[in-house]
Amino acid sequence: MDFSILKELLDKHDLIRLTNILKTMRAADIAEFLEELDHKTALLVFRLLPKDLAVNVFSHLSSQRQSEFSMLVDEEELASIVEELYFDDRIDYIEEMPANVVKKILKNSSETERRLINQFLNYPEDSAGSLMTIEFVDLKKHMKVRDALKRIREIGQDKETIYTCYVIDEERRLEGIVSLRDLVLADPDAIIEDIMETQIIYVSTYDDQEYIADVFKKYGFLALPVVDQERRLVGIITVDDIVDVIELENTEDFHKMAAIQPLRESYLDTSVFKLASKRMLWLMVLMISATISGGIIKKYESALEAVVALTVFIPMLMDTGGNAGSQSSTLIIRSIALGELTFKDTFKVIWKEFRVSLVVGLPLAIVNFLRVYFLEGYGLALSLTVSATLLVTVIFAKIVGGLLPMIAQKLNIDPAIMASPLITTIVDAISLVFYFTFATWIMGL
Amino acid sequence: MDFSILKELLDKHDLIRLTNILKTMRAADIAEFLEELDHKTALLVFRLLPKDLAVNVFSHLSSQRQSEFSMLVDEEELASIVEELYFDDRIDYIEEMPANVVKKILKNSSETERRLINQFLNYPEDSAGSLMTIEFVDLKKHMKVRDALKRIREIGQDKETIYTCYVIDEERRLEGIVSLRDLVLADPDAIIEDIMETQIIYVSTYDDQEYIADVFKKYGFLALPVVDQERRLVGIITVDDIVDVIELENTEDFHKMAAIQPLRESYLDTSVFKLASKRMLWLMVLMISATISGGIIKKYESALEAVVALTVFIPMLMDTGGNAGSQSSTLIIRSIALGELTFKDTFKVIWKEFRVSLVVGLPLAIVNFLRVYFLEGYGLALSLTVSATLLVTVIFAKIVGGLLPMIAQKLNIDPAIMASPLITTIVDAISLVFYFTFATWIMGL
Repeated sequence: MDFSILKELLDKHDLIRLTNILKTMRAADIAEFLEELDHKTALLVFRLLPKDLAVNVFSHLSSQRQSEFSMLVDEEELASIVEELYFDDRIDYIEEMPANVVKKILKNSSETERRLINQFLNYPEDSAGSLMTIEFVDLKKHMKVRDALKRIREIGQDKETIYTCYVIDEERRLEGIVSLRDLVLADPDAIIEDIMETQIIYVSTYDDQEYIADVFKKYGFLALPVVDQERRLVGIITVDDIVDVIELENTEDFHKMAAIQPLRESYLDTSVFKLASKRMLWLMVLMISATISGGIIKKYESALEAVVALTVFIPMLMDTGGNAGSQSSTLIIRSIALGELTFKDTFKVIWKEFRVSLVVGLPLAIVNFLRVYFLEGYGLALSLTVSATLLVTVIFAKIVGGLLPMIAQKLNIDPAIMASPLITTIVDAISLVFYFTFATWIMGL
Repeated sequence: MDFSILKELLDKHDLIRLTNILKTMRAADIAEFLEELDHKTALLVFRLLPKDLAVNVFSHLSSQRQSEFSMLVDEEELASIVEELYFDDRIDYIEEMPANVVKKILKNSSETERRLINQFLNYPEDSAGSLMTIEFVDLKKHMKVRDALKRIREIGQDKETIYTCYVIDEERRLEGIVSLRDLVLADPDAIIEDIMETQIIYVSTYDDQEYIADVFKKYGFLALPVVDQERRLVGIITVDDIVDVIELENTEDFHKMAAIQPLRESYLDTSVFKLASKRMLWLMVLMISATISGGIIKKYESALEAVVALTVFIPMLMDTGGNAGSQSSTLIIRSIALGELTFKDTFKVIWKEFRVSLVVGLPLAIVNFLRVYFLEGYGLALSLTVSATLLVTVIFAKIVGGLLPMIAQKLNIDPAIMASPLITTIVDAISLVFYFTFATWIMGL
């Protein structure tokens, strides 16, 4: 978005016109604007906003900016903002704040609220409990539709969603779900019990967010109830939060597949040491594993001494094998993540990868032979050795690339681990074994 | 989900109990069950379902299963299902069907409908036009809230969503948006014009779905209006379709980053030749590029002849360089995709990657030195050469891995291209240059 007009008004200190424009803007856009200013100017602009809008903008700010604001304002001002946040936004915010800010907030909360906040902070980071909000509409099954709508009118203003309402009994156990759509379309005299959905899909407070995202994707819900171990309704999760979860889970997979331990914060907000620590482990493991390839070369040093030209083709063989394997493993890992492949498809995958490897491997081997033999003028035996190794490496790489993620899934290891870096290391070692074996046979070394 | 009870009833031909259970199930679950059966049994079970549920189940089936059903049933039965599908589901379905099925469907459609279908089929695959549905609630600004709710009750049953309603003028131009929430919470005598939102966020029929997903993510909408060039409202996009778009766009990025041309169909549904064709181009390009590394080795053949042991460390150097570069490029590509980094951050990225590369490169180089010199007993000069190359390669790899995606973005090339395979090829060549240069200096070759 272009904020040049706003910045101009700010430079001219024309705060009245600035405020008038801000009032017509959406909270997400204002937050974007505030992120572009230095934090003191941002707070000045933030204070121009009417209360409701200010709270909404606050919930859209990055945690870094939220934290800067929280340090600058006094307890009272902070409390007035925090109180108005939806409960799930409040928890997200408190989780990210430094200890002194959290203290400030808890000091200004009631005893009940403090207990509730602590309970929510205790849910594991990726669980339904940490995603849910407590602001939902609850109804009783004996209500008439007319009365339910009246109740929604009375309490709906402060609820995160009124589109899905939850029917609970005296013990707060979930008995049914009724959508505002059904309420609006139903006869006002109908009884909730007769129109509510009783085949309820729900999740538990400790369910993982990845599973929850899958439920949303499968059923296309707008909201999902969260129950505790006694099946008492404790909160709901809305679809807008799930969109973020899906992106977060995908980011984790991207990171894992590039041998990085998953990183939550944005790149620029993460310190150099944290960035380094997330990459160190795998680099070290893979570096040490790669010495196996070195060991294989060492074993065939005499062959290399006889024909130094063999070395020339090692990078090409390693790279092509690695790429062929990564293509397969990426396709399979992604298909597993999307729920398209399960362990029972393993044989189908291998058979398919085998055929694909022939279809791509043969042209690659032929082009390579033509180039090495005719263009570069190497001998027939060496050209054949290189091309045969290439073909066999591609076949092997694609089968391993397809197989390892399937096995990982079966063993409850995250298939994303079996991505490019690990496959490349394995394929590299094996391609060298093929290479020297073929060299020994064909070139008689 | 576990369908063993259903399968048992099916084996016992107890279709009455089977039907009773199916009636209590959700459409998405029934579709999952039908996918597990052979297509004739699946059709038999499908025909047991009450009409409304059957249509809903049909929209959840894979396009392969939809296509099988469409071939088996007669024109009349097919028409009765297709007519009841929401318009966006109908278009998705028609797009995937073979020509003879499409003919069957169009033959049974009215002239107006045929024209509408053809118009929708003409929108580009990834555009707002191909995502939208035409089943929305439209209101006029002079209506009272009471009358608007009455209208929703009358026409709402067939609309994909009634939670967001669209206020249009006589020329169908979009004037405002009002949510069912606002309608329910407002005074029944209020005028729509006074409660509607006029700062409307909308998209155009030809906008790309990736942009549309970003709009949903930013504002947390449940639905978004789509207008034509005259700002006339032509359709709406609902959030459940956006969840699919986000996964699709992520899948495309995963594929591109593994040097695969993006694949839309599921892995098992894609033919061997199509799978091969999506992988061939990049494998060939990268194989030919890798010969640069071969050329560098060839240039230094005399050095290798003098110290064959140099070859032993080539795989480790290449792999570690490739991994270090992939880590950086993946982090940066993902951050760009999430809108966290833009070109103006380029210098910050390079400076950060440089520092990270020192923090990870030094321990790697030290561990490597200890291993090569003390454990494997190579000479000091060779051990130093290998470790110095490792450090410089990691630094270079991380800077290139950070820089190339930023440049790609600036040049409007998809940054995902600058992922592991390309970075690895570049880093491999350069690491060999470092290696032989250091070998010449340190070992005096």
